[in-house]
Amino acid sequence: MAHVMKCSQCGATAVINMPQHRLKLCAEHLVPWVAKMVQKAIERYELFTPDERILVAVSGGKDSLALWDILEQLGYQTEGLHIHLGIDDEGYSDASLAKTAAFAQERGLLLHVVNVREIYGQSIVEVARGRRGGRTCAVCGLVKRHIMNEMAHEDGYDAIATGHNLDDEAAVLLMNTLHWERRFLSKQGPLLPSIHPRLARKVKPLVLLYERETAAYAIVRGIDYVMQECPYAVGASSIRAKGILNQLERHSPGTKVQFYLGFLRAREDGWLPSDRGLDGSVAACPRCGQPTTADGLCAFCRLWEGVR
Amino acid sequence: MAHVMKCSQCGATAVINMPQHRLKLCAEHLVPWVAKMVQKAIERYELFTPDERILVAVSGGKDSLALWDILEQLGYQTEGLHIHLGIDDEGYSDASLAKTAAFAQERGLLLHVVNVREIYGQSIVEVARGRRGGRTCAVCGLVKRHIMNEMAHEDGYDAIATGHNLDDEAAVLLMNTLHWERRFLSKQGPLLPSIHPRLARKVKPLVLLYERETAAYAIVRGIDYVMQECPYAVGASSIRAKGILNQLERHSPGTKVQFYLGFLRAREDGWLPSDRGLDGSVAACPRCGQPTTADGLCAFCRLWEGVR
Repeated sequence: MAHVMKCSQCGATAVINMPQHRLKLCAEHLVPWVAKMVQKAIERYELFTPDERILVAVSGGKDSLALWDILEQLGYQTEGLHIHLGIDDEGYSDASLAKTAAFAQERGLLLHVVNVREIYGQSIVEVARGRRGGRTCAVCGLVKRHIMNEMAHEDGYDAIATGHNLDDEAAVLLMNTLHWERRFLSKQGPLLPSIHPRLARKVKPLVLLYERETAAYAIVRGIDYVMQECPYAVGASSIRAKGILNQLERHSPGTKVQFYLGFLRAREDGWLPSDRGLDGSVAACPRCGQPTTADGLCAFCRLWEGVR
Repeated sequence: MAHVMKCSQCGATAVINMPQHRLKLCAEHLVPWVAKMVQKAIERYELFTPDERILVAVSGGKDSLALWDILEQLGYQTEGLHIHLGIDDEGYSDASLAKTAAFAQERGLLLHVVNVREIYGQSIVEVARGRRGGRTCAVCGLVKRHIMNEMAHEDGYDAIATGHNLDDEAAVLLMNTLHWERRFLSKQGPLLPSIHPRLARKVKPLVLLYERETAAYAIVRGIDYVMQECPYAVGASSIRAKGILNQLERHSPGTKVQFYLGFLRAREDGWLPSDRGLDGSVAACPRCGQPTTADGLCAFCRLWEGVR
């Protein structure tokens, strides 16, 4: 007979075992526990308050939809932003938009949609292809940051929330540490304060949750999310880093969370340097007005030079 | 037909490919290249000078025997110290002593041998078994450090050299980083200066060489070394860390060396804190006279309490 896991709180059949917390939970108790972990992150890292307006960046994946769902449950003021990247491979972007829009509609939430190809004339893939050395993921990050900052500035949101979970953050931290990327190690974390009126505060309320926990949450809550990974992310170094951390985690539960929280603590204590400023002198981009350290057009505007 | 690797220096058949250096070398050119890397480490990290007397800790494995061989080639003043740990499993300790003694005799080098069981009454395994929570590797490290320090002090050596290679160092660094072990991260490196007259300077001249490079060197030089690993090291976390770094290295040659050297550079630049002092106040152990932060007997003398 198969062994049945029991919920640590009520003895019902558990849907998830979290050895790093010595905790097993049933569907009913998982939902408030996940919400509590998000609330804990919001308070511990002073991400935002109930009277602030939060723009949630929703891709249509489990993490960002779970995040929006949790923030709504917790009573925060949220609106969604979905960026349609124009990735046609396997119908990725259309499927992502469809799932996100359905999610918002079912719950009566306000969703803003920005379609990159419609506004800028090319999809992420097309514009990345045209640039020398321009890797798709880097270009995509640049474009998304620009659009999020622009929207937060124009519509006066206090913060932009993204669905990065602990696995995402620990994987990036591992890569940054293996290369001793001092600039990134000085900044990476659940809170990136606004250091310029045109650059919104960025927050990651899911940083205390493992990917498998947000996935279990999404399933239990009946959230219909895009299962496929972005076709361009295959082979990304962050995926390799996640695999390595999962190997370590299997052998020693809690490795990922201790690695990430130990890092944040080392910086809070001043053992690791903290630097959240912009590098170099900052000017306004003559085209879009966003701050840039470049001499002339910002990286975003240079990307689209000659396209339109 | 199989592809034949060619030596980057002479075109002869290469015995090793080192993609992180974009270098392939034949047996003849490998030997001076390895010696050059050791000389580079000695100078770059100011490990020791030709007029200093070096005690080389030789276990009988490839790294420590290769180290002794290289230091002799480079003209340094060396004597060897072999510590017989009394590990009878698979005849490990006897085999290690035999290989080490044969190596020294063939080359006319002076080898000192300390037999733990003969002097202290129990083997490493026996004394580790008697201690609560005393893991064999930790006890072994404590005993070896004590014996090396004692001998260096009594016979006036300027430094103790060990055969730690870059793989060893990078694996320890990875474990220390995953746990953000600040104390160890502040100290770990090729040079541990003498911070007390009874604690010798510790140096690791092989830190610029990958394990496969020292292995190739030992084979090419016809060094007959102990192939078996210590039976108690199986499953050690450092072995898991090495496996992980080798995965990363395969995908991206140079990962290990960049990780380690980037760390040393970050500390040299003051980006990471450096602390080489003893922790807390130091007193002389009333039994052995070595410095200790304990109140009363030092950890080494407490280990043997009641044995003799």
